[in-house]
Order: sequence, then C-alpha cells, then structure tokens
Amino acid sequence: MNATPRPGSPAVVLLSGGLDSTTCLAIAIDAGFVPTAISFDYGQRHEHELEAARRVAATYAVARHEVCRIDLRTFGGSALTTDAEVPKGRSVDESSGEIPITYVPARNTIFLSFALAMAEVIGASDVFIGVNALDYSGYPDCRPEYIEAYQAMARLATRAGVEGRPLTIHTPLIELTKAQIIRRGLELGVDYGLTTSCYDPAEAGASCGECDACQLRLKGFREAGLADPAEYRRQL
Amino acid sequence: MNATPRPGSPAVVLLSGGLDSTTCLAIAIDAGFVPTAISFDYGQRHEHELEAARRVAATYAVARHEVCRIDLRTFGGSALTTDAEVPKGRSVDESSGEIPITYVPARNTIFLSFALAMAEVIGASDVFIGVNALDYSGYPDCRPEYIEAYQAMARLATRAGVEGRPLTIHTPLIELTKAQIIRRGLELGVDYGLTTSCYDPAEAGASCGECDACQLRLKGFREAGLADPAEYRRQL
Repeated sequence: MNATPRPGSPAVVLLSGGLDSTTCLAIAIDAGFVPTAISFDYGQRHEHELEAARRVAATYAVARHEVCRIDLRTFGGSALTTDAEVPKGRSVDESSGEIPITYVPARNTIFLSFALAMAEVIGASDVFIGVNALDYSGYPDCRPEYIEAYQAMARLATRAGVEGRPLTIHTPLIELTKAQIIRRGLELGVDYGLTTSCYDPAEAGASCGECDACQLRLKGFREAGLADPAEYRRQL
Repeated sequence: MNATPRPGSPAVVLLSGGLDSTTCLAIAIDAGFVPTAISFDYGQRHEHELEAARRVAATYAVARHEVCRIDLRTFGGSALTTDAEVPKGRSVDESSGEIPITYVPARNTIFLSFALAMAEVIGASDVFIGVNALDYSGYPDCRPEYIEAYQAMARLATRAGVEGRPLTIHTPLIELTKAQIIRRGLELGVDYGLTTSCYDPAEAGASCGECDACQLRLKGFREAGLADPAEYRRQL
C-alpha cells in the first residue's frame, strides 16, 4: 500500500484537520506529490474540524481543497452525528477492543469513495488516508485488511483501473503509535497548533481533554515527551 | 451474491427510479425482504429521476425512503453531472466496449457506501443494487468482479462484519438481458410507466428516445415483444 511515490504526481489526501490527516498531508508533500485535499462536512457536531482543515490546507498552500457536503445524520447511529453523549473520562486502555459509539457507520468507506471519484477526475493514481491501526480505538475501517480490500475493490471500480492505471491507497501512519506520528510530523515541520482532534470542543474551539480523541492525542504527546500546542479548556 | 433470502429481514435497496432498480425493488419485496430505499440527489441534470423514485417508493408502500444529497458536481467528469452533451442517436452496439462519457466517476462505489452505512444503522445484512453486466454499457462498476470485491471490502468495513453478520450484496439483474429484466418485472406486476430511464428528458418528463439509456430500454421492450409504457417526446 505504501508504494514508492512518483514525485510531481497528483494525489488526493483526505484531510480532517486533525493530527493524523495533517501529518499524512505533510508526508505526501514531502514525498513529492501535488495534493488535492478533500474534507467532509458530514453533519459533525462542530465546525471546528473544518476550520482546522482549512487552516492546514492554507498553510500548506494546497492548490485545491474541496469540502464535500454529505449528510451522514440521515443515518444517525453515531455519537458524532447525533445528540448522544460523547464518552469522557475513561482511560484509553478501557476503550480498546470495543467499537466505540463515536464510530460513524461506514465513514471511511464513504470518504474513500469520494477520494476515488476525485482521483479519477484529476487523473491521480494515489490516495492518502491517515488511518492508524495501533491507536484505531476499535474502528473496523482503520484496519490494514480493510484498506487492502478497499484498494482491491477500487482497482476494479474505475475507468483508470480498467485502463491499467491502478489506484494505490497510501496509509503512511497505519503502523505508527501516536507518539511516532507526532515525531514524524515534527521532523517535517508540522505545526500541531493548527490541528484539532477533540470530539466535543468548546464554542471557541478549545479541546475538552477528556474524550477518547483528546486522550489518545495527549497520550501521544506525553509518550513523545512533548507538550501539545493545542488549546485545552483547562490546564492538563 | 444472490444468497437465499431470509423473509422478513430488512434490506437496503438502491432506487434510482429507473427500470432496473424498480425491478430490483420488486424482486427484493417478492423475496420477503422489508426494504428501505435510498435514492441520491447527486447533481444530476434533472429531477425527473428522483420524482420517479418517489412514485415507485410510494407505489410499493416502502416504509422508509431516504433521498441523500451528495454533490458529485464537485468532481465534474461526467456528461450526467456537467453541461457536456449527452451522446445520442448512435446504436447501442456502437457504444459497447467503451466507457461512455455518461459514466459518473465512482458512482456505484459512492452509492454502495451510503447503502452500507444505512444497512449498518438499520441492522440489515442485505443490500440490493440493480446493476447489469450484459447491458452495462461499459461502466466498470457494473461488473460482477467489481461487486464481489465491494462485498469483500464491506465485510471488513463495519461493526456488523466484525461481529459476524456479513453483508450480502444482491445483484438479481446482473446476468439478465434488458428483455429478461422486463419480463421478470412484469411477472411481479411492475408498472414500468412509473419509471424513467432517460439521460436527457424534456421539462415535462418525456423521454428523448435517443440517448444510450433510452435506446437500451427500447431495445429491451422490442426484444420482449412489448410496448414501453413510458412517455416519449415523439412516436418511436
């Protein structure tokens, strides 16, 4: 999945505005790809994530950044798209192994499908997604076997595949710990103050520090021996 | 892919309002499934398709019919979502083998991804899609090998798959000719006057009779020895 990049080639990068996808964008650019970024306005409970994505895309002077509106609230089924309460205060270890209620049904499948459409339109054979298997927090669509199956499907799905230009889905973070992702990003000059990971930020954008996403992020910075430049609602 | 249905089970049916998807819905109901229908408002050039889908869903008293808005025009790349001219007047045989410009990039992949999300939310293990390999007119995402790869991916993508309830994608039309589809639908009492297939209908909804979709449909009715009850702009 992580084939040798061809410098100067177009690539589609899924960009949520979080720590992982921002690192993924930096890695794609470092490898010489010319990225088109896609973010999704999918009825998530706050706009801060999209604002972070726009800040990141602007910082990296991404030539094209599309925000696709899709309404996953039609389906409900997740604490991130309904009024259900985001779980807080439990340790990251407690949550491992189970699929959390913050899981959005088929989210990565839908996101990758839009990336596939965009790749076909711009003539890209490369898609980057910042999924992570070690810290995947129980999401089935972050596992390597899922990504491999998606790539196999994608190679049969499109004109490009039929015409002999198979798609590669790059997952440069898939086997890294959060601390390793942060170290890799810092080597590439990523400013993590631009990014947000919180499932339940305050109106002004400060992270809660207590949801699963905040806890994973804070644990990563602790393990990397670094301070998180993101703004939190209270001293951590 | 066409496993024995379990009567009374929920199923998700992709419903465009065309001849194929309407037949597919009738087959799902005949097999005893309780369908949830999904249609897409994807920036197609006319609303007639969605009106037909609503008529069909109402006729079959489908308990839940969701119209998902997704903007594939973001991507362009198809005569169905841009201002490019829909090809007309060529024979169906002329168009076979090549991928036509009416192909929408990754369309079935995106549609199936929404169906997968819906299936997960309503607890369905069955999705119906009216793709057709014989008359597929060169679309890569209508081929059996594509559907098989999609199903393999879907079984790894969701909570249901992880928990041992694998998804089945039903493609009851995949090996039928258009004439066979029409005969099967008529056996099930389908009123094809409710459906529309045209890529370029008139304002009032009459079909052009000349685009690839009209030609395939008309050829099907001719081969079945039947008259098409749909309204055409001129006598055919």
